[in-house]
Amino acid sequence: MEWDQLWIDINLATMDPDRPGSYGEIEDAALAVKDGRIAWVGPRSELPEFDPLAMPVIKGNGQWLTPGLVDCHTHLVFAGTRASEFEARLNGATYEEIARQGGGILSTVKATRAADEETLFQLGRERLNALLAEGVTRVEIKSGYGLDTETEHKMLSLARHLGEVHPLDVHTTFLGAHALPAEYQGRQQAYVDLVCDEMMPAIAADNLADAVDVFCENIAFDLDQTEQVFRTARELGLPVKLHAEQLSNMGGSQLAARHQALSVDHIECLDEAGVKALADSGTVAVLLPGAFYFLRETRKPPVELLRHHGVPMAVASDFNPGSSPLCSTLLMVNMGCTLFGLTPAEALAGVTRHGAQALGVGDRVGQLKVGMIADMAQWQIGHPAELAWQYGNRPCRAVYKAGKVVRVS
Amino acid sequence: MEWDQLWIDINLATMDPDRPGSYGEIEDAALAVKDGRIAWVGPRSELPEFDPLAMPVIKGNGQWLTPGLVDCHTHLVFAGTRASEFEARLNGATYEEIARQGGGILSTVKATRAADEETLFQLGRERLNALLAEGVTRVEIKSGYGLDTETEHKMLSLARHLGEVHPLDVHTTFLGAHALPAEYQGRQQAYVDLVCDEMMPAIAADNLADAVDVFCENIAFDLDQTEQVFRTARELGLPVKLHAEQLSNMGGSQLAARHQALSVDHIECLDEAGVKALADSGTVAVLLPGAFYFLRETRKPPVELLRHHGVPMAVASDFNPGSSPLCSTLLMVNMGCTLFGLTPAEALAGVTRHGAQALGVGDRVGQLKVGMIADMAQWQIGHPAELAWQYGNRPCRAVYKAGKVVRVS
Ligand SMILES: [Zn+2]
Ligand SMILES: [Zn+2]
Repeated sequence: MEWDQLWIDINLATMDPDRPGSYGEIEDAALAVKDGRIAWVGPRSELPEFDPLAMPVIKGNGQWLTPGLVDCHTHLVFAGTRASEFEARLNGATYEEIARQGGGILSTVKATRAADEETLFQLGRERLNALLAEGVTRVEIKSGYGLDTETEHKMLSLARHLGEVHPLDVHTTFLGAHALPAEYQGRQQAYVDLVCDEMMPAIAADNLADAVDVFCENIAFDLDQTEQVFRTARELGLPVKLHAEQLSNMGGSQLAARHQALSVDHIECLDEAGVKALADSGTVAVLLPGAFYFLRETRKPPVELLRHHGVPMAVASDFNPGSSPLCSTLLMVNMGCTLFGLTPAEALAGVTRHGAQALGVGDRVGQLKVGMIADMAQWQIGHPAELAWQYGNRPCRAVYKAGKVVRVS
Repeated sequence: MEWDQLWIDINLATMDPDRPGSYGEIEDAALAVKDGRIAWVGPRSELPEFDPLAMPVIKGNGQWLTPGLVDCHTHLVFAGTRASEFEARLNGATYEEIARQGGGILSTVKATRAADEETLFQLGRERLNALLAEGVTRVEIKSGYGLDTETEHKMLSLARHLGEVHPLDVHTTFLGAHALPAEYQGRQQAYVDLVCDEMMPAIAADNLADAVDVFCENIAFDLDQTEQVFRTARELGLPVKLHAEQLSNMGGSQLAARHQALSVDHIECLDEAGVKALADSGTVAVLLPGAFYFLRETRKPPVELLRHHGVPMAVASDFNPGSSPLCSTLLMVNMGCTLFGLTPAEALAGVTRHGAQALGVGDRVGQLKVGMIADMAQWQIGHPAELAWQYGNRPCRAVYKAGKVVRVS
């Protein structure tokens, strides 16, 4: 065997749906890597004979390997805090008072526009480090706190740069249509035109976005505006995704499905027609329990319907300063089960196989399967369901990117 | 000045209620330690002249110091997991089916009875390490997974031993009246007699418990049995506390107040008469948002009434495998605000000053105040409210016990 590394004395949650078991689990397994990809995976008893001196043999001490976690929806490049707004609200301030004091998303826009790149870089790096420590190997980062061409460009180049210098892989998403900037109040259509005619072409020209997203909601952008952004994206060759059906059912998911969106995200208010549209288009439903928790929502996403129609469900942190200030993918696995009733296997698939699918890379990562990139997390657990049941005890012992160790603890 | 260490270039959330500001905050402060206790605290501008070569001067780089966090309610010594039960429930199993398969608290009792001390020690140490990493310096650990004299004794000596060898300080609580062991089914009173006549004296004789607790609930022990345990505890000179009013209002809080309990814990169903009783006796109300979250409860503790009557509110993790498998005190600060509507200052007081008061050590720890033990956590934040608003980004940079650094990150 010409392998670069071999793991033995290890259990695997392969998350490969073609294997038996809800985690595609293989106890007492072996896994080999060659050129950064998984070259062999199976029970130890079936491993071909090998020369133990020919390559590094890593003994897992009975720990578990899973695919590296994928957080497919974050807004983790931002400056400033929203702590004072959080505090004011808990001290009884109304939303109007908070808005008058300059709170809300536009305060993050202001802070992000004002921040220099070094500050944004350091903040982003610390957040990626926190995610890496819990086994995350791939993360999506959206723009949307610039809302002008210069700052949207700055956010996305910074996200790209973070992906280059940090062990985590970063997918970038252009979310110019996130909110209406103050200088466009009362001129929403003019802002959407700016997004389509100036921002997106500039960003595409520098290859800064892997996808394009819109916040489609009664408090944000409507269906026509969403479609305008989607059409422009597709003309530029960029796949689309959508913040949809969070607070109301506007039909954004059907629109997204018609545009073969990678994912629709939030979808607490999605109905069966929308679920069927997702099933037909192969669009991933991204569940964001952190925002549900933090906003004290009561309406849950239609998990039963999504299951029934076979729509893949991803789970992500939505880490952002306003509605989900929770920089933890693993907490979302617990919250996906506790708040939305996902099974532990569904929640873990949501941050591995289906998270990868939501980023359009389900053919390369998210499973421990021959040919896939060897992005993996190693855990001090007795069973994969423990990753959903218990939180906080920091079970991640090692993280591997393309077979190479990038973190040990 | 004859000090051992001095901190400058630091901001303080003293949590001292005699100072202005809801955190007793002092920006650009100084703090000095002598013989493990805080010897000077105040604005840097008021610091007496000192010889910078006479002692180590620690520059805080504009970070914040708070009192070390106190988690006053945990069950963190246990063996086994409840992951399979969690998974079975999410796959649709009924409570009866889970009980038939040996789930529930008695499965933890079985695993804890069977575990050797080394296993329990390693598990406990890992959990304490996770808490220490987020700034916790003092924790309470309850027994209650033994339910026989030998195992209750084993759990409490282990908790004591952990406190001796680990940087965290450990308070031990005897909770023999936690659940009815299988061998006493149908003989509840006989079990309470065992708790009072055999277990508690044996544990008190070896000085293994700092307090005594009971789970007073319609599914656990009733008021008469609680009182029997309390009377025995007080004869042995041990202070009491109570799991009360979690699922129903049984009047446990009034009973606890009559016995000058240190705290009553959970109290989602507490009424105003109970709140007044706590106010009169100086008993701390311990809020446990992790169990509320994990059990998907909807009735919140009476925070408004507790505020109105001036009852000190602590916040704790209740970390345990069945109803709060969340080994994170800092997450409870966020949950206390998000789920219960505490202000960030109340939540932070809940894991510092009031947490210490719930353990009977409010005169020694829980505030940055002259004479108190210099247990402190240092944070990379711009304002103390950030500790409540944001979670997961691991802001704790250093932990000090009695002035000495015990963890850096
Ligand atoms: Zn989002
Ligand atoms: Zn408890």
